[in-house]
Amino acid sequence: MSTAHTLETGGQVATAPVRHFISTGDHPRAVLDAIVDRAIANAGARSTALAGLSVAMLFFNSSLRTRSSFEVGIAQLGGHSTTLEVGAGVWNLETIDGAVMDADKPEHIVDAARVLSRYFDAICVRSFPKLKSLEDDLADPVISALRDHATVPVINLESCLWHPCQAMADVMTIRQRFGRTDGVKVALAWTPHIKALPTAVPNSFALAAAQFGCELTIVAPEGYDLPEAVTAQLGGATVSHDQSLLSDQDVVYAKSWGRLDRYGEPPADTLRDWILTPEKLGDAVFMHCMPLRRNVEATDAVLESPNNAAYDEAENRLHVQKEILVELIG
Amino acid sequence: MSTAHTLETGGQVATAPVRHFISTGDHPRAVLDAIVDRAIANAGARSTALAGLSVAMLFFNSSLRTRSSFEVGIAQLGGHSTTLEVGAGVWNLETIDGAVMDADKPEHIVDAARVLSRYFDAICVRSFPKLKSLEDDLADPVISALRDHATVPVINLESCLWHPCQAMADVMTIRQRFGRTDGVKVALAWTPHIKALPTAVPNSFALAAAQFGCELTIVAPEGYDLPEAVTAQLGGATVSHDQSLLSDQDVVYAKSWGRLDRYGEPPADTLRDWILTPEKLGDAVFMHCMPLRRNVEATDAVLESPNNAAYDEAENRLHVQKEILVELIG
Amino acid sequence: MSTAHTLETGGQVATAPVRHFISTGDHPRAVLDAIVDRAIANAGARSTALAGLSVAMLFFNSSLRTRSSFEVGIAQLGGHSTTLEVGAGVWNLETIDGAVMDADKPEHIVDAARVLSRYFDAICVRSFPKLKSLEDDLADPVISALRDHATVPVINLESCLWHPCQAMADVMTIRQRFGRTDGVKVALAWTPHIKALPTAVPNSFALAAAQFGCELTIVAPEGYDLPEAVTAQLGGATVSHDQSLLSDQDVVYAKSWGRLDRYGEPPADTLRDWILTPEKLGDAVFMHCMPLRRNVEATDAVLESPNNAAYDEAENRLHVQKEILVELIG
Repeated sequence: MSTAHTLETGGQVATAPVRHFISTGDHPRAVLDAIVDRAIANAGARSTALAGLSVAMLFFNSSLRTRSSFEVGIAQLGGHSTTLEVGAGVWNLETIDGAVMDADKPEHIVDAARVLSRYFDAICVRSFPKLKSLEDDLADPVISALRDHATVPVINLESCLWHPCQAMADVMTIRQRFGRTDGVKVALAWTPHIKALPTAVPNSFALAAAQFGCELTIVAPEGYDLPEAVTAQLGGATVSHDQSLLSDQDVVYAKSWGRLDRYGEPPADTLRDWILTPEKLGDAVFMHCMPLRRNVEATDAVLESPNNAAYDEAENRLHVQKEILVELIG
Repeated sequence: MSTAHTLETGGQVATAPVRHFISTGDHPRAVLDAIVDRAIANAGARSTALAGLSVAMLFFNSSLRTRSSFEVGIAQLGGHSTTLEVGAGVWNLETIDGAVMDADKPEHIVDAARVLSRYFDAICVRSFPKLKSLEDDLADPVISALRDHATVPVINLESCLWHPCQAMADVMTIRQRFGRTDGVKVALAWTPHIKALPTAVPNSFALAAAQFGCELTIVAPEGYDLPEAVTAQLGGATVSHDQSLLSDQDVVYAKSWGRLDRYGEPPADTLRDWILTPEKLGDAVFMHCMPLRRNVEATDAVLESPNNAAYDEAENRLHVQKEILVELIG
Repeated sequence: MSTAHTLETGGQVATAPVRHFISTGDHPRAVLDAIVDRAIANAGARSTALAGLSVAMLFFNSSLRTRSSFEVGIAQLGGHSTTLEVGAGVWNLETIDGAVMDADKPEHIVDAARVLSRYFDAICVRSFPKLKSLEDDLADPVISALRDHATVPVINLESCLWHPCQAMADVMTIRQRFGRTDGVKVALAWTPHIKALPTAVPNSFALAAAQFGCELTIVAPEGYDLPEAVTAQLGGATVSHDQSLLSDQDVVYAKSWGRLDRYGEPPADTLRDWILTPEKLGDAVFMHCMPLRRNVEATDAVLESPNNAAYDEAENRLHVQKEILVELIG
């Protein structure tokens, strides 16, 4: 419920702006590195860093890992969390500024942001894109409204554009496997899927890989580009349509996403030959944010291989998110 | 799980009846005043008053503020809460005495009340009216069954008839703004809405305003009366259809509710000119229980004004409910 | 998050297999007796046995008692729980090995089991039978997959076949009423219902009654048999279609279940004369796992009788489950 950190300086009290965690790109590498360092050092530790504090977990969409890892992590830090599911137990929220609210949404997100800020010390929110209008989704309306109107830190649990907690766990996993991130060869490998999925996970993984000095290659079928707002931040990433590059990588990060030029449409061509197999991967470490559709995105054999680091990534969500919370409100 | 407070008197042990918080009208002003005093004094404090205790939060309907503020408040008191959503994760509950239960409700509320009393130290319940039969709703069947069959304190999170925790937060907000409640001029101002809403909030606000010595005026269109069972308890409240009275008030408490003589029917006349604007309010403090439909009940300008005390009301839910819990089970 | 108990023996470290609680039949009577002993001794006690530990509560189906009693019990032991509802807030889970996952279930239970094991110290799961294929349900696919793939203890909150926590509370209730279980005459009495219910509760009650030395009689209409996989474990239980045997019992355990030979079909004959009444029960203690359909399974008079031990059973869920948790992870 504190609205900002106060810094006492020679008798004066200055108020620092509220710090959020919406994209890794909002923070310098030194801050991100320190979070990963502490996550590795403190993995499994219990503390009282969040004693007396409460965190809101606001879900517009489903979750298994995110919800579990945050609730457990907050408990391991001695804090309290409340999980709120919008539209199921919690009022539907209007996101349009100036709306005449005479339809099915009885509460405005501006008001929800302000009210939640009165109860909670941080607000974590998951809000996927609606996949109807690319322009609307690029504005990331829910997380933007919370950032603008909440008076406590906002943590992104996956928005239209970014999934920074996942990317931090991914980077931590690379650090664990290779002892470093700089110069590690990572491919972001497109996989088949029955739906046109959002780009938040590939956006954040690609951005974090670039920030942490990885050598990034994006391997995807023609037409499967990431948003320009993202690729503009990636520096010298290679883009290729050639799956044979995968076996030459240290890490293959598998993920499906939809075409931006046929936004939200179910895939016309299922491109099932883009499924990942042990043969395509060679010795590369396999990573995936999960949930994963077995035998569509990757074969059972990939999942059962010792090169599969997806469970470590999932575990690292817990460790790294605890340090993000401590960084912002601990 | 204690079924009643025990009072030790000269070697004898007497059992006091279980105390509930169903309407402010069940408690003398001195008790209510003391709760508000403590809520103001202890705002933001952490304690162990509920250490080792568990509170059930039973929702038949949606909630944002109520759920958040209770869960956070219980945590700040060192207690534990379990949130149960009836019909979504929890069995549907039959409320009719003697029913042959061969339809869609597998559990009787009498049995749920008794069982929850074995697990929890208090039961908080939200159950809105069904808005089909005024007579049925005036009997307030869910909260009445819990009161009659639970053996631990029952706290009303908004029933068909009353929303006493909201009213206590409202009174606290008036105290904060004016340093007193006696003689403060408050108007309960009807607002437009797309639905016929329940009267629980205006009932409880009007009753609490009367109990706390406010000078109450109800300003509503013709035909929009509150239930006689409520107005009979209000003493000398003024009733008017004249919106020009609003600018002459210290406080304008905005709220929509439906006609009792066309019970539950969508409004035939939307009466959009009853929307609240800065012009109508003048210098009066604006209050609202939220959620609020912007630009239907009140304009954005009202919400963005420094006279808007609705966020304070929401925050005060947290503070005052903690003291209600401590009063009953702390 | 510990994957197994480690036993230090003379400088060597051996890893014991993970212990689950899936059926009472998996554990010798001495272990079960000790759990009941401790549940009686520790009823109502608070401790820090689970301090720093987190328990997942994974629900594929609704619950009131199970969810409440586990959440409260874990809190009374100083632990933390996270309640996850599959398909409502949590991804739907595929249970078929080797499935090509291109339908409506985005995550495989094998992966969920492994991921939850990274976050939680135990996984409690409720997964009712689908009641479409007896053969499929007898394989108990969800709990079996969790047992096989989780690396932390799995506790059964009612599967297709078993409800062991209920049976432990039942045995505890018999112990409280009679001071013993050996030689107590208990009837498992079939009751009418509008649906074909699963056999998990009667299976587990019958098995536990046999394990604890009760004299068991199953009284049900012709055609209402329990699965052979269960009855094979019951030793010398009597089976009868004669309701007049009930009044000769110490305990009548009421429960409805569906015909196995018309699996999942709504009852053709409602057999309403199998409703339990005070006359049929005589002096026998009435037990039921709840929820109970009043005036369909048993009359209001049975429920309101002092011989009704169903509320004690519900309360004992709390006490006995705490000791099961302490046994496995405390």
